[in-house]
Amino acid sequence: MASTTQTDDDGAFSAEQYFATQPPSPSLDQDIKKVREFAQRQLREGRRVVLVTSGGTTVPLELNVVRFLDNFSAGTRGATSAEYFLKAGYAVIFMHRQFSLQPFSRHYSHSTHPFLDFLELDSAETEPSNVAGSDATRISVKPSERKQLIEVLAAYKAVQKAGTLHTLTFVTVNDYLWLLRAVAQELSVLGRSSMYYLAAAVSDFFLPRQRMAEHKIQSGKGSLHIEMDQVPKILKSLVDEWTREGFVVSFKLETDTSILIPKARAALARYGHQVVIGNDLHTRKYQVVFVSPASSHRRSSSQKADGGEESYIESWLRIDPASYPQKEIEEDIVKELVQLHDSWISMQ
Amino acid sequence: MASTTQTDDDGAFSAEQYFATQPPSPSLDQDIKKVREFAQRQLREGRRVVLVTSGGTTVPLELNVVRFLDNFSAGTRGATSAEYFLKAGYAVIFMHRQFSLQPFSRHYSHSTHPFLDFLELDSAETEPSNVAGSDATRISVKPSERKQLIEVLAAYKAVQKAGTLHTLTFVTVNDYLWLLRAVAQELSVLGRSSMYYLAAAVSDFFLPRQRMAEHKIQSGKGSLHIEMDQVPKILKSLVDEWTREGFVVSFKLETDTSILIPKARAALARYGHQVVIGNDLHTRKYQVVFVSPASSHRRSSSQKADGGEESYIESWLRIDPASYPQKEIEEDIVKELVQLHDSWISMQ
Repeated sequence: MASTTQTDDDGAFSAEQYFATQPPSPSLDQDIKKVREFAQRQLREGRRVVLVTSGGTTVPLELNVVRFLDNFSAGTRGATSAEYFLKAGYAVIFMHRQFSLQPFSRHYSHSTHPFLDFLELDSAETEPSNVAGSDATRISVKPSERKQLIEVLAAYKAVQKAGTLHTLTFVTVNDYLWLLRAVAQELSVLGRSSMYYLAAAVSDFFLPRQRMAEHKIQSGKGSLHIEMDQVPKILKSLVDEWTREGFVVSFKLETDTSILIPKARAALARYGHQVVIGNDLHTRKYQVVFVSPASSHRRSSSQKADGGEESYIESWLRIDPASYPQKEIEEDIVKELVQLHDSWISMQ
Repeated sequence: MASTTQTDDDGAFSAEQYFATQPPSPSLDQDIKKVREFAQRQLREGRRVVLVTSGGTTVPLELNVVRFLDNFSAGTRGATSAEYFLKAGYAVIFMHRQFSLQPFSRHYSHSTHPFLDFLELDSAETEPSNVAGSDATRISVKPSERKQLIEVLAAYKAVQKAGTLHTLTFVTVNDYLWLLRAVAQELSVLGRSSMYYLAAAVSDFFLPRQRMAEHKIQSGKGSLHIEMDQVPKILKSLVDEWTREGFVVSFKLETDTSILIPKARAALARYGHQVVIGNDLHTRKYQVVFVSPASSHRRSSSQKADGGEESYIESWLRIDPASYPQKEIEEDIVKELVQLHDSWISMQ
């Protein structure tokens, strides 16, 4: 535990310092009460639970927020994966950035596939007195859209009925950090049956509340200078403290492919978790690389303690969009992870 | 014209310097060709045209964008106002931030009013072989949602049929600036029949392309330092150069109400346009203030040239959400502006 309660070697806040100085959002207690009920029910009903985080976090520059730093993410990876986890029988806590994509409704983005475009209004034409809004007006779905809508709707209704999807919302990196810690603590009752699928694009930097401007920063006074601190290495705390047995999957997004695998290995060495999924900004919909320690012993930490070199397995997962334009890579990612999670549980 | 081609007195880029050094997006020419066709058609058909800008602009920190500065705005003001302008008979160019709210679909936000929640699936129950997706499955709308959906859908279809709504999308402040200039140049054929309703939350700062990092900024090297330049005062160029006769409405959003009116007056004195609508972040849905020069002579510039004091008219517009929860303040804002635009046109 000592490793996360001291200041980091590069001067960053430790997790403990962070939570001691940055206040949680007022809704945290209420949010977590519902997560507890959800986790307890899944435990009783014998389901595995995956926490899927999704979308980008913000770093507000002002207390009355007008400007903020953001991390690019529409939330496609998280929302799509959540659907496949549900299909695989998992209960899902979907913790996402406000207004980022969500499972099911993601198929009907208002920008790319607006649902108003495939609804039709048919008035009974024999009675000229009929106006829009009268009882005789019928709303119908365009034939070309019916099949997909029925499938999405049926899956959505089934999940609602089963009560296997719970949604949490964050905006700032501070919301995210407090929620992640609290959810992990609640999910610890599930032991190895819990998975963490950390697909959110989390800021590496934050602006301590104590240094934020109260009101909107005024322009007209020359250029803007911003100086931010590093966010604590929260994965270390997650693995060492908050969840003792959860199966932890993190993501690495880079724009320079040459540093992707070295950075994925470094993350595994540093945090001691199970899998890093590496992806490049430009090819992320068609290929990802799974990187994991060759020793599946999570708590060994041998690579740090005795200076011995850990070895790593890299396995590329690719789809062929030319041949299968409808195929989503998240289907294969989830399939692979479910198998790895099976092994993880059986190692108990 | 000289005023916008020199470096500003506080060292900011002039508009001319800006456009000479920051490249447009590759889609600009194609976007503007469509705007030209739209403007020409409205001119032939004798309609007034309003450009509504909406949502926040981003400032990317990297060429391969992972991180960016953003301005808070869901786009409610712009999307709602666009609907009321359409209802008032205007043609609307809706220039908005990708994924911000849009007219009509704004009523069905996936987060607050998801349309999947009010669609029902009814299978014909007499035939047990029917499964979701078969021809016998019917999709219907919950009775409680029918009335609103029919209204929204009817208005949406009518606008589509009339061809009076044209949508443009921006992400970065650079996209926004190039689009604004080009659209204004195209709308100049409409003379006084054009209005500019600049509700977008535009960054005051930008990072010149020449100073951007190519790849994702790496963490682990201490804190993050950002230094940005001021965006040129584009309203000055809009009023003095790009549109000679358009009716220009800008917005001022503050979190400190005490500076709202002084800042609105200062903007009018500086740029010489027609109206500033002032709003406070916390009360913006219930009250706004219209500030305009008492002299309705737009080109007088007397307040600067001869040192004489211009006087201003402030008029508050308020709605009462307790008594009328369904009322949208944009309905009254647009009604007021249409009258002011009438006067502006008749002054010709």
